[in-house]
Amino acid sequence: MNILIFGLGALGTVYACLLKEKGHRVTGLSRKPVQEAVMEKGARVTGIWGEHHAMLDETVTGVDKINGSNPDLVIVTVKSYDTEKAAAEIARVLSPDTYVVLAQNGYGNFEAAAKHINENQLILGRVIFGAETTGPGASKVTVIADDVILGSPKNLIARYKMEKLASVFREAGIPTRFSKKVMKYIWGKIMYNSALNSMGAILEVNYGKLAEVEHSRMLMESVIREIFALLDKIGQETLWPDPEAYIKDFYEKLIPATASHHPSMLQDIQRGRRTEIDALNGAVVEMGKKHGVNTPVNDIIVSLVKSKEKMGLAIK
Amino acid sequence: MNILIFGLGALGTVYACLLKEKGHRVTGLSRKPVQEAVMEKGARVTGIWGEHHAMLDETVTGVDKINGSNPDLVIVTVKSYDTEKAAAEIARVLSPDTYVVLAQNGYGNFEAAAKHINENQLILGRVIFGAETTGPGASKVTVIADDVILGSPKNLIARYKMEKLASVFREAGIPTRFSKKVMKYIWGKIMYNSALNSMGAILEVNYGKLAEVEHSRMLMESVIREIFALLDKIGQETLWPDPEAYIKDFYEKLIPATASHHPSMLQDIQRGRRTEIDALNGAVVEMGKKHGVNTPVNDIIVSLVKSKEKMGLAIK
Repeated sequence: MNILIFGLGALGTVYACLLKEKGHRVTGLSRKPVQEAVMEKGARVTGIWGEHHAMLDETVTGVDKINGSNPDLVIVTVKSYDTEKAAAEIARVLSPDTYVVLAQNGYGNFEAAAKHINENQLILGRVIFGAETTGPGASKVTVIADDVILGSPKNLIARYKMEKLASVFREAGIPTRFSKKVMKYIWGKIMYNSALNSMGAILEVNYGKLAEVEHSRMLMESVIREIFALLDKIGQETLWPDPEAYIKDFYEKLIPATASHHPSMLQDIQRGRRTEIDALNGAVVEMGKKHGVNTPVNDIIVSLVKSKEKMGLAIK
Repeated sequence: MNILIFGLGALGTVYACLLKEKGHRVTGLSRKPVQEAVMEKGARVTGIWGEHHAMLDETVTGVDKINGSNPDLVIVTVKSYDTEKAAAEIARVLSPDTYVVLAQNGYGNFEAAAKHINENQLILGRVIFGAETTGPGASKVTVIADDVILGSPKNLIARYKMEKLASVFREAGIPTRFSKKVMKYIWGKIMYNSALNSMGAILEVNYGKLAEVEHSRMLMESVIREIFALLDKIGQETLWPDPEAYIKDFYEKLIPATASHHPSMLQDIQRGRRTEIDALNGAVVEMGKKHGVNTPVNDIIVSLVKSKEKMGLAIK
């Protein structure tokens, strides 16, 4: 396949390297410093999936610079707040048969991309393996909690096409399966991040610490209950029948597996970058307003994370 | 007068030194390290009220060790969470004519002390000058925003006695006046601290920074509005007719005068100490529950400050 990886951060580098190694034609798109590094040295992957290295067919800083034909597949790995901008760019090189996989965090990527790309070409990916950047075009895979789940939120794409796409990733070494209910998985990841990533960014601690203290536990449980109330209201199922079942898994399985994880939004704040709060608790608050569900804890968490974003680590 | 200063922190040291200098008999009570330092070297005050030094008549670590007669006046300067314990101890050396001035932060000091001391012997003091400890028994006065206000919350003490007491402090160099509505002043200070001190402790910034960022401004204004709603409900007036008038003063006068102030609760957390959150936002939440007023923002702020208290500054 002719594949465009849109964004060569930790996740994009993994996809670019493993798909190229498998023999696909791979174009990598990113900002100039990373693009130049990948053009010269290729994409490198280390960690739990072994050592990999591949020279890409093409590296570009924008779609207009692509020499190859229109891609069959685009994998979008930019931050969630850049999804719409990315989709507008991707729309310029789309064929009617191109599929676009949105592999980002949070809620709203499908909706943002659908402003520029037909819904029957859009696929959501729930990615739940961890990758860290170790240099430009170099990535370390640290942990995998479950297969990547691929799906069309409104099931507008034929099952056999989805299955075939999942097998492309599997054959490249990325455990992946198709689900007709991808949003159930996406919402699971949103809940996990809205509780842990945001609270960890505010309190500046890892995930394990948040589970040790009564008061932070209460707050995370409130975040989760508010999200369940919202999903009930809009008729969105998750993999858990009720908040209690999720909270049990949360403390007994999800947190123990990632206790030492440092919140990505805290890393963003410490590097003076924008966080993905708008696609996590922020999306919950917006949907809550729209559907008449109160989400006071999510609301205050958004304000605190945005305060920290603005203030940086000013007086430390 | 025969005066007992209960607690020789920054504030207690100022009272002990200036009242002794004026010729009163002064006993200082505190924990051993400070008691020993003050016994040897006396109490020292520097800062905006000039340089002062006085040897106290007596220093003790508990009321049972006092050699002098029962005090005419006790000034309580311990942390608000120690008020009840202090009152129980003070009750053992009270004469019917002794007055006890509670000079601490927050709501609940009068109620806690009244468990052990008659209400007609209890006086609340709203202290709004700033003093910092510069060593054991050494204090620096950094700023004064207004006179100390003294009052009996239920006006159980004759006006001429209150006026006389205020003049004792004034003559010692501590600007002080009597008010028949001391709770109006106390609530002003509680609002100020519940907005700034708590939010500054969570976000780890000074007061000025909190006023610069839209999202922290919104949160502080919510804290203030919730407190006004509570006070409306219980029929407690403040010095401001409504939240808007307070918020105007808050940004235009109160914060500019103290913009560089570092939150005392942040200092407590950084030193691994308990904060006074229970007497500030915590008291608001408790009163809200009792009187049926929703205080979600204050509630979440309490949980976050208590989380930080517990976690210390673990992973920094």
